Amino acid sequence: MSFPHRHLLGIKGLNEADVHYLLDRSDAAVALSRQREKKKASLRGLTQINLFFEASTRTQASFELAGKRLGADVMNMSVGNSSVKKGETLVDTAMTLNAMRPDILIVRHSSAGAAALLSQKVGCSVVNAGDGAHEHPTQALLDALTIRRAKGKVGRLIVAICGDVLHSRVARSNIVLLNLLGARVRVIGPSTLMPSGISDMGVEVYTSMKEGLKDADVVMMLRLQRERMSGAFVPSVREYFRFYGLDAEKLAYAKEDALVMHPGPMNRGVEIASEIADGPQSVIEQQVEMGVAVRMAVMETLLTGEEARP
Amino acid sequence: MSFPHRHLLGIKGLNEADVHYLLDRSDAAVALSRQREKKKASLRGLTQINLFFEASTRTQASFELAGKRLGADVMNMSVGNSSVKKGETLVDTAMTLNAMRPDILIVRHSSAGAAALLSQKVGCSVVNAGDGAHEHPTQALLDALTIRRAKGKVGRLIVAICGDVLHSRVARSNIVLLNLLGARVRVIGPSTLMPSGISDMGVEVYTSMKEGLKDADVVMMLRLQRERMSGAFVPSVREYFRFYGLDAEKLAYAKEDALVMHPGPMNRGVEIASEIADGPQSVIEQQVEMGVAVRMAVMETLLTGEEARP
Amino acid sequence: MSFPHRHLLGIKGLNEADVHYLLDRSDAAVALSRQREKKKASLRGLTQINLFFEASTRTQASFELAGKRLGADVMNMSVGNSSVKKGETLVDTAMTLNAMRPDILIVRHSSAGAAALLSQKVGCSVVNAGDGAHEHPTQALLDALTIRRAKGKVGRLIVAICGDVLHSRVARSNIVLLNLLGARVRVIGPSTLMPSGISDMGVEVYTSMKEGLKDADVVMMLRLQRERMSGAFVPSVREYFRFYGLDAEKLAYAKEDALVMHPGPMNRGVEIASEIADGPQSVIEQQVEMGVAVRMAVMETLLTGEEARP
Repeated sequence: MSFPHRHLLGIKGLNEADVHYLLDRSDAAVALSRQREKKKASLRGLTQINLFFEASTRTQASFELAGKRLGADVMNMSVGNSSVKKGETLVDTAMTLNAMRPDILIVRHSSAGAAALLSQKVGCSVVNAGDGAHEHPTQALLDALTIRRAKGKVGRLIVAICGDVLHSRVARSNIVLLNLLGARVRVIGPSTLMPSGISDMGVEVYTSMKEGLKDADVVMMLRLQRERMSGAFVPSVREYFRFYGLDAEKLAYAKEDALVMHPGPMNRGVEIASEIADGPQSVIEQQVEMGVAVRMAVMETLLTGEEARP
Repeated sequence: MSFPHRHLLGIKGLNEADVHYLLDRSDAAVALSRQREKKKASLRGLTQINLFFEASTRTQASFELAGKRLGADVMNMSVGNSSVKKGETLVDTAMTLNAMRPDILIVRHSSAGAAALLSQKVGCSVVNAGDGAHEHPTQALLDALTIRRAKGKVGRLIVAICGDVLHSRVARSNIVLLNLLGARVRVIGPSTLMPSGISDMGVEVYTSMKEGLKDADVVMMLRLQRERMSGAFVPSVREYFRFYGLDAEKLAYAKEDALVMHPGPMNRGVEIASEIADGPQSVIEQQVEMGVAVRMAVMETLLTGEEARP
Repeated sequence: MSFPHRHLLGIKGLNEADVHYLLDRSDAAVALSRQREKKKASLRGLTQINLFFEASTRTQASFELAGKRLGADVMNMSVGNSSVKKGETLVDTAMTLNAMRPDILIVRHSSAGAAALLSQKVGCSVVNAGDGAHEHPTQALLDALTIRRAKGKVGRLIVAICGDVLHSRVARSNIVLLNLLGARVRVIGPSTLMPSGISDMGVEVYTSMKEGLKDADVVMMLRLQRERMSGAFVPSVREYFRFYGLDAEKLAYAKEDALVMHPGPMNRGVEIASEIADGPQSVIEQQVEMGVAVRMAVMETLLTGEEARP
């Protein structure tokens, strides 16, 4: 069994075996991180650069801890968008870093395709940590890991992805991954927050939470990305919560043991009620824990043949 | 001999034996940091997160170096106050980090009680690195260590804490600790910069430097926190220095071999004259060195049974 | 053979043997960084602090990676100029860090002489990573290393340094170093961007690219530092490029195998055309790689007797 890719640019391009390979290695990494001495030497002497053109405290922290626990030398590079005005300069920045001979570049950028572009220019592995509204593959993998550990499988589950699908790379990566693993995927949200080609992505589309959540095994809430909206349609928070915010009443439409997920950071009282976020069905904190494990597994897989066993 | 606490949230709650235990371990850490190879492996594989909601270059640096010298994986998280508007979100941030399975969280926050609140939510040790005008326990410990090393003891010394006591967590933690160790504590400052309950804290209160410094063994200057003052009383720098700034004339009221201390960063010419800050009685740089050692001792004590011996 | 200096404050003060000693050690460091496990333990347990009063993503990254590859504990301190208004406070910051017992301080500051001043105050080695328009010695060393590896020597080559010489510490350090190694140095640029004493620095001065580039072995372009210019003369980008921007036509004046260099970050289309920056004569990426190696060699030389051999 092996993983035939040098980069992780998106879920698109992976097959089912690839994904289960990464999830199996992630399980081993979870065990490592639960030990007192949560450290391996598998990436010892290798250089990891976190190149974040968009600020993201939690995703960067997750990759940083993952690399440090594998023994890599980790360097954070937060590059303000102000200093990067042209695509050319994005490449210049990457070429400069590449010349410093890193082994892996973790890239977040506001433009779709940025990570793929860089992967063609540099001599090392590239992981996409979010490119515009396009892909965020490690988020989809950590969500799948969370589901697989809680439910024992992903295939044949009904997963409802709810809210601002239009602006969400999390939704996009999850739709591709969940379909690959044989889940039945629904998206729920106002039609103004649905991408135009959504019905071609292998999902059932709902505008009503009541109908969309019926019999769902997993309720995956999305962050309302008001900072990415402009002009015409910016929903009022109060109205949005009334129709699409997950509260006890709406959650009751789903299966009794449905998982509640959120990629964070949460807008409490906007897309999710606090009582639900902190309630017994919530696996939101497990998602964060799985995030470190998935990133350990991905980086170790791309850079070595070894497993992240404790 | 042991230390029966999981967290260090304040000096309040410690007893005299606890403090001497930490100071003894700090002495060993000083010796380690004075070696060429200033490094141990006692926290190897453990994760330390510095979660600073208020910027503090020197305190964060001190904790960062302390952790690295003990072999921990150290991650800095500087969270602007802008992104943290509600207590709820403070907890969300901490819960997210907690899910990444750190072993110790170092927390600085502008609100009194923030570190204590977090310690109830997370599964790891918490060290308070300053919470509002409440406590800053590692500062008080490093001050006590500096005094104990210079004078051979703390008990029965006369220690005068001078200046802006009202806004100072340094003063508050020091008053508690110095009383615990049997020192005779005085506070000196304008009545407008004294907290209302000050006379109940086991100190003698003076408004005159001449009277308050008489026979003092230690003169501990406080930073004038003009950034925390509002409206009515913001003293003029010139007038403040005239009455409360430590210069040669005022220092002469204290014992001839009195120590001069300051927690930094100094406002030279405001609360202290440069000639005094750089003079022979000043132990201000020793305080910084002791800071790294105390933080090593505290973290190693909370996380292991071992000593920070070289 | 040895290196008789404790600090690296500038190229001025080094002799030819010193420089070749550092370049030889840099060659070994290049080999180390090209291995998979690009890591030594020669600075294990030592503390490196990067004290940057001016932001510089790439230089700081280069020093950070260099230190980590040598096994040092590296701490970044970015100090905004806002918090440093007086020379006194620069010293206070350095004294505070010094009390934390670092082994080496890497200093960048907007004032000429800042690194030299600090070296007199602290107890550890100091490397100047750029002080105002004065010196940037590791840049000159990496440029010399790049030339020596590409051409087999530096002596007797004709090196043309082109553009904004007035504001450039890179130019200043390079002029001193290239002269030391026996190169024939020319500077080319508008007279308004030439320092007043330039003709006393052992260079030939040209205002025409055509004449200055004739028979050049190396064409070293400088970044146009418009952010350092004020008032009277800020050249228009279009006009500057027309007269001094390196394009195919101007490069043809130099030798056919002339090297094209730039310290980065480049203003493409201002001082250099993209086709030249990315063309076959460009060694701009090699310069970046050499930068990490030179910094490894410098730090290891200052702190140990060992070589940076793989």
